[in-house]
Amino acid sequence: MIKHALSVTRDGDFAQWYQTVVAEADMAEESGVRGCMVIRPWGYGIWERIQRLLDDRIKATGHENCYFPLFIPLSYFEKEAEHVDGFAKEMAVVTHHRLVADGKGGLVPDPEAKLEEPLVVRPTSETVIGTAFARWVQSWRDLPVLINQWANVVRWEMRTRMFLRTAEFLWQEGHTAHASADEAREEMQRMLEVYRSFAEDDLALPVIAGEKPENERFPGAVATYSIEAMMQDGKALQAGTSHFLGTNFAHAQGIRFQNAEGELEFANTTSWGVSTRMIGGIIMVHGDDDGLRVPPKIAPWQIVIVPMLRDQPEDEAIVDYCRGLQGELAKLSALGEPVRALLDLKQAKAANKRWGWVKKGAPIVIEVGGRDVAGGNVSVLRRDRLYREDGKLDSRVIARDDFVGAAAALLEEIQSGLHAEARARLEANITRVDDWAGVEAMFVESAAKPGWADVAWSRPTGAALDQVVERLKALKLTIRNAPVDQGATDGACIFTGTPAVERVLIGRAY
Amino acid sequence: MIKHALSVTRDGDFAQWYQTVVAEADMAEESGVRGCMVIRPWGYGIWERIQRLLDDRIKATGHENCYFPLFIPLSYFEKEAEHVDGFAKEMAVVTHHRLVADGKGGLVPDPEAKLEEPLVVRPTSETVIGTAFARWVQSWRDLPVLINQWANVVRWEMRTRMFLRTAEFLWQEGHTAHASADEAREEMQRMLEVYRSFAEDDLALPVIAGEKPENERFPGAVATYSIEAMMQDGKALQAGTSHFLGTNFAHAQGIRFQNAEGELEFANTTSWGVSTRMIGGIIMVHGDDDGLRVPPKIAPWQIVIVPMLRDQPEDEAIVDYCRGLQGELAKLSALGEPVRALLDLKQAKAANKRWGWVKKGAPIVIEVGGRDVAGGNVSVLRRDRLYREDGKLDSRVIARDDFVGAAAALLEEIQSGLHAEARARLEANITRVDDWAGVEAMFVESAAKPGWADVAWSRPTGAALDQVVERLKALKLTIRNAPVDQGATDGACIFTGTPAVERVLIGRAY
Repeated sequence: MIKHALSVTRDGDFAQWYQTVVAEADMAEESGVRGCMVIRPWGYGIWERIQRLLDDRIKATGHENCYFPLFIPLSYFEKEAEHVDGFAKEMAVVTHHRLVADGKGGLVPDPEAKLEEPLVVRPTSETVIGTAFARWVQSWRDLPVLINQWANVVRWEMRTRMFLRTAEFLWQEGHTAHASADEAREEMQRMLEVYRSFAEDDLALPVIAGEKPENERFPGAVATYSIEAMMQDGKALQAGTSHFLGTNFAHAQGIRFQNAEGELEFANTTSWGVSTRMIGGIIMVHGDDDGLRVPPKIAPWQIVIVPMLRDQPEDEAIVDYCRGLQGELAKLSALGEPVRALLDLKQAKAANKRWGWVKKGAPIVIEVGGRDVAGGNVSVLRRDRLYREDGKLDSRVIARDDFVGAAAALLEEIQSGLHAEARARLEANITRVDDWAGVEAMFVESAAKPGWADVAWSRPTGAALDQVVERLKALKLTIRNAPVDQGATDGACIFTGTPAVERVLIGRAY
Repeated sequence: MIKHALSVTRDGDFAQWYQTVVAEADMAEESGVRGCMVIRPWGYGIWERIQRLLDDRIKATGHENCYFPLFIPLSYFEKEAEHVDGFAKEMAVVTHHRLVADGKGGLVPDPEAKLEEPLVVRPTSETVIGTAFARWVQSWRDLPVLINQWANVVRWEMRTRMFLRTAEFLWQEGHTAHASADEAREEMQRMLEVYRSFAEDDLALPVIAGEKPENERFPGAVATYSIEAMMQDGKALQAGTSHFLGTNFAHAQGIRFQNAEGELEFANTTSWGVSTRMIGGIIMVHGDDDGLRVPPKIAPWQIVIVPMLRDQPEDEAIVDYCRGLQGELAKLSALGEPVRALLDLKQAKAANKRWGWVKKGAPIVIEVGGRDVAGGNVSVLRRDRLYREDGKLDSRVIARDDFVGAAAALLEEIQSGLHAEARARLEANITRVDDWAGVEAMFVESAAKPGWADVAWSRPTGAALDQVVERLKALKLTIRNAPVDQGATDGACIFTGTPAVERVLIGRAY
């Protein structure tokens, strides 16, 4: 039996396994500030890769980056009733702008420095960006406005979990204004597709893109679409959302323009976002019992070279050999970019370094000892195939030149292999279910990893939808989305028995 | 006489000119939130270039990026008395985590959701990062810790000015911990040099690196160094700082390690930062009466192609020609990177577009009309040499191939030309002054752009320093820094008459 690097397995306790990977892979840690985490170098390095690759896609679709204030006056929120209802319960509020000594050696907010109007720490920026749009847009010629921002936001969550749900998180939020509802809907779909292809191609994260049901819409939206990823415990993670806001926010913020006929119209707006939550999804989709496996496209370091040093004179030759190797690898190009190769010269035992990089999930770890130098070889460890069939570590001695010649292709193979593995698991764990009894059977208490049910429904609204939501809630289920990629639907709604209009995915979720 | 693009000149009203450039170059605008600005696409694009280039330098010197919480519990601040004294007067304080209806259609902070311990919105992160360092550092083997963070910070300034002084601003803050004071001082110097060379080489911003006097130290620091740039009105802008914190924060946060001999020691720490303030400096150093001039290395677009369209069938050929040109330029490399060329296809008059790009300061604007297409030419406008001697716009018709062949060298010439111009101005406006009467004469009320005085002093401390500071304050002057690059000093201190130990620069400042 294989002795894995982590003290807990996915099958043993998935939640505990997740926390262990977050810690052991140097991703993040508790900060001491309630609900806020410290994102450590390896975790932040992955976020930087996500930023770089997604930002390129956002710019390629014509959007420009801006920066808007962290603080939003209360009055901005009051204008959009649904929106404020959705967020009021979890907003951090700044009320003072100065501290003063409390006379007991401590500090308190200075009562003399109370703000006239409290400021909310942005939970999302529709209101403050909409206010800017109202200034920017006068004529149809000013449209569309296509803006994105990379920022931190705060939602005061009661139960937090690293990356998945934190009081402060990092994200990008796109905001656009258009001359017509059709154009705005097109934009919403375009960005949904940007997210889908980014997740699949860059993160090796298979997702289902689709429309959220009415009860799961973003507060103030006319339609909300999402990409949903399946974790290894079968639960869903909403990994990105794209909203069509109609003219709701334009009415609240006064975004109006003169159309070509000289009439005043309200603009149609959209918003869309992806956050550090995505990193939680990467861990739960690609991790294994030895830690994280980072897809090469987003790995801060794709190839890590560990010299096996022994405090001997021959160490120098080993380090020289490794430097030469690093230089050769850095000249290569894989997955459309220069290869990122690190020479790990930290003061630590080579075996600890090796397992450190395995737990972090560097795609390829190269070990170089005196014997490798003498033979012109390297010892190669692929993170996606760590063990041989007999359970021993699959470290292979390869001629250095052969490895360098094959390295780019190997990284591409690892990227596509991780994707194929996750894609197969997603598909294997979506079950077509024909009636409510089938759903109940699938999600009985004892089911280990039930995955998602794919069911037909009639898209009920109002009270009828509330009933559906309640029935699902009793089984801890939610409707994830109605996939955009689906054929015609026939048969009956599993909830109401009336003719079905579309298929939706049902599952447990993070 | 030249008719310039802006309604106000630098000589006419420098402060008003600055605000005009910020607005007309599409850099930033008031947000409606007190003291906070909206950074618009061109301004944010320059910030993105700054981030990219400075981040490369920070990583090349061995630092890794992390992310720490926005909120800092009050108790973290109370531990370092000088530090909290320095910042308590300008901290935004979060006291509630929920809003509730006020019964009059509005919202108020929910009294039921008052935080037990108020949270400060970070004005700087020594305390929260130091707390993490205390967890990370146990042994000398864990040192040095070399961390950087890109983040927003808030300092509640009473008088704000776009980029130069805003309640919220963006910056990077580096934080490091070391086994010895010498090592930490070396780090402080290393990062000062990173800032100096970054400013000179990437921003074309000549600066003087040196040590701040005791009264200008960062709250809690043992030594503070800065880079100081000279604006076109002769005032100084502190454009970056690097601090040696000794063991002050290590004591407050408990950053201790076991040294090689097994004894417990406190770590020595540093911090260093550069902010969006830098953009204000770029405007005030490189701008002219036609707007901003962006050095090519940090220009979001280095070459902008404006097709002269007339709603005629021939428009299509012009756009095709421009696309081809853009493709050729994008294949070039200048200043170590691929050339960034934009084809501006916005719906607007070509003349308005031209002047828009002039005001934004794109280094090269190419105009293409039907005649250019027919002749295989382009019309080239260099932002650094906009007018001919006779005051007419210096737009030159050049064979397309010749322009493409020369474009990379031209960008490099513009970069070094802007630097040389600013460097010459800095040097011409530093005046060696031998006594206090000379300082008074130099900074009389009527002096237009007095620049800086270079004087010898005895580096007084305590009450003697206070007296110096008061004398300077009466003339609205401050000591900027004691340049690191200076020879031996002789003569007497201009303030005390005692033997001088170093030379310092004195000037008015932003």
